[in-house]
Amino acid sequence: MATLPTDALVASVRAGQVRAIARAITLVESSLPERLRLLEQAFPHTGHAFKVGITGAPGAGKSTLTYQLLPHLIALGYRVAVLAVDPTSPFSGGAILGDRIRFDEALQGVYIRSLASRGSVGGLSRAVPSAIRVLESAGFNLILIETVGAGQLQVDVRYVADTVVLVLVPEAGDVIQAMKAGIIEIADLYVVNKADREGAKRMRLDLRNALELGGKPKGWNPPILLTEAPNGKGVEELVQHIQEHHRYQHDSGEWELRRLQQTEWELQSLVHDTLERQARDLTRTLFAPETLQQIVQGAVNPFPLLSEWLRSQGNG
Amino acid sequence: MATLPTDALVASVRAGQVRAIARAITLVESSLPERLRLLEQAFPHTGHAFKVGITGAPGAGKSTLTYQLLPHLIALGYRVAVLAVDPTSPFSGGAILGDRIRFDEALQGVYIRSLASRGSVGGLSRAVPSAIRVLESAGFNLILIETVGAGQLQVDVRYVADTVVLVLVPEAGDVIQAMKAGIIEIADLYVVNKADREGAKRMRLDLRNALELGGKPKGWNPPILLTEAPNGKGVEELVQHIQEHHRYQHDSGEWELRRLQQTEWELQSLVHDTLERQARDLTRTLFAPETLQQIVQGAVNPFPLLSEWLRSQGNG
Repeated sequence: MATLPTDALVASVRAGQVRAIARAITLVESSLPERLRLLEQAFPHTGHAFKVGITGAPGAGKSTLTYQLLPHLIALGYRVAVLAVDPTSPFSGGAILGDRIRFDEALQGVYIRSLASRGSVGGLSRAVPSAIRVLESAGFNLILIETVGAGQLQVDVRYVADTVVLVLVPEAGDVIQAMKAGIIEIADLYVVNKADREGAKRMRLDLRNALELGGKPKGWNPPILLTEAPNGKGVEELVQHIQEHHRYQHDSGEWELRRLQQTEWELQSLVHDTLERQARDLTRTLFAPETLQQIVQGAVNPFPLLSEWLRSQGNG
Repeated sequence: MATLPTDALVASVRAGQVRAIARAITLVESSLPERLRLLEQAFPHTGHAFKVGITGAPGAGKSTLTYQLLPHLIALGYRVAVLAVDPTSPFSGGAILGDRIRFDEALQGVYIRSLASRGSVGGLSRAVPSAIRVLESAGFNLILIETVGAGQLQVDVRYVADTVVLVLVPEAGDVIQAMKAGIIEIADLYVVNKADREGAKRMRLDLRNALELGGKPKGWNPPILLTEAPNGKGVEELVQHIQEHHRYQHDSGEWELRRLQQTEWELQSLVHDTLERQARDLTRTLFAPETLQQIVQGAVNPFPLLSEWLRSQGNG
């Protein structure tokens, strides 16, 4: 990779070459200095795609739903790519095995890629916004982002997606848990999947009540849809509502606002990423292995050292 | 809080005053400079507690199981505290409502506290190791840490707990999902909860096969237990195995190794925390609101600016 100049790589990405896209995403996932050069060159060709986040607990059926969405979106003329950030997604084989490109008859031209949700502190992979830029410069204009939902991870999806779809299953307590996890407020569309199960309609009611309780901001009234992902029931309706939300955002000006937040988060993540590596190096410099040993034994108190370092950083 | 000197606060914590413990944990959760002073003063009284992580997907029954463990542990003479890092935990009301101290007859003296899994990037709350130090200096010698399991979050629990208990429920695909999420390898004890459900024994078999496939390192052979948390079935056996793992760690010297990793992670987190705030500030300095606007409009390319900043940091 080091031998291919980034401008040649960007040119190949723009030409839609699948291998080049794969290499470019691998590059932006890395910490190599060239990654910023590539992003700089890709930048003029980015910023246009419509990004849909599919989030929810493991086992909610996000992958199946994503898969079912694809033919509908293709039929509407979108050029579709999928980013799987969910470590439990069947798509995520790709994160270990390299790219997986599906050549189903129905899915021709869909690019599917997994990103490891790595990094020492977790959270939505910092590479997501960069991978989106690569995909945009390759001409994809609809990007589905599948992300596992739990705690902070779920909340982060709003900083990369224009439309957030929360997938729930009719299980006792799921609505309560989603509320507690702070995901309820950030979704734009709700899907009660596995709607053939008992309690699906009840769940929709619970959810409707929870939303009204929360006092959703005026403007967009988030629909709650029932789907059965494996047989495709309700999927077409979901597509219509995704499009409707897209239109709403453009008409209301919310789109621009979200883009601002997304861009800020993206840049902050890149800055943070660098500082994170510095934190690792710094910790190892401040606390060498023998010092750590002494700390564990109680012979050295690490906190005065830390305080001193923080003061030297202009922090307290 | 600012008016109470940290040494007086530490003295009250050491005396076991519940309000002082609450205040001290709130302080170490904050970014106030005094937090390091408090940790410095608490440090000589820390490092001794046995820390047990209870992790698993939302809805696996972690909280109920934790609750059932308490009377057994108290009967064994432990002074027990619970830290709930799970945002979906019923214990986590405390994160919003302030401390909740239970005065059940069976649970006298148990201190229960929630920590928000906050921070811009998620991950196990950085305050956990600090809160543990506060609890240790208050004389607690067994700390249960309940943490929601998904992706990276699950993996982080190993850096704060001596013994990691993974709670699973008999659901199709749960073992596969846990394997993919990288949690299988890091648990020391496995619990198939809701063992009255169909498929519990089958799950134990699947899990056993998965573990043998993974080639667990020699020494500790992680048991797989069946429990029914609501009625306490299997809980006593779980307690026995937790104690056994504790003994194993001391006998094998693994305990010291883990403490080294835990300490390194703790210090790294504190360094990281500072750098994270710097990242936010820096991003806002590098990219003022009007610049962000221009970036969204495509008029300004942010990446040359970023590259320049990284170079100034000695990074590429």
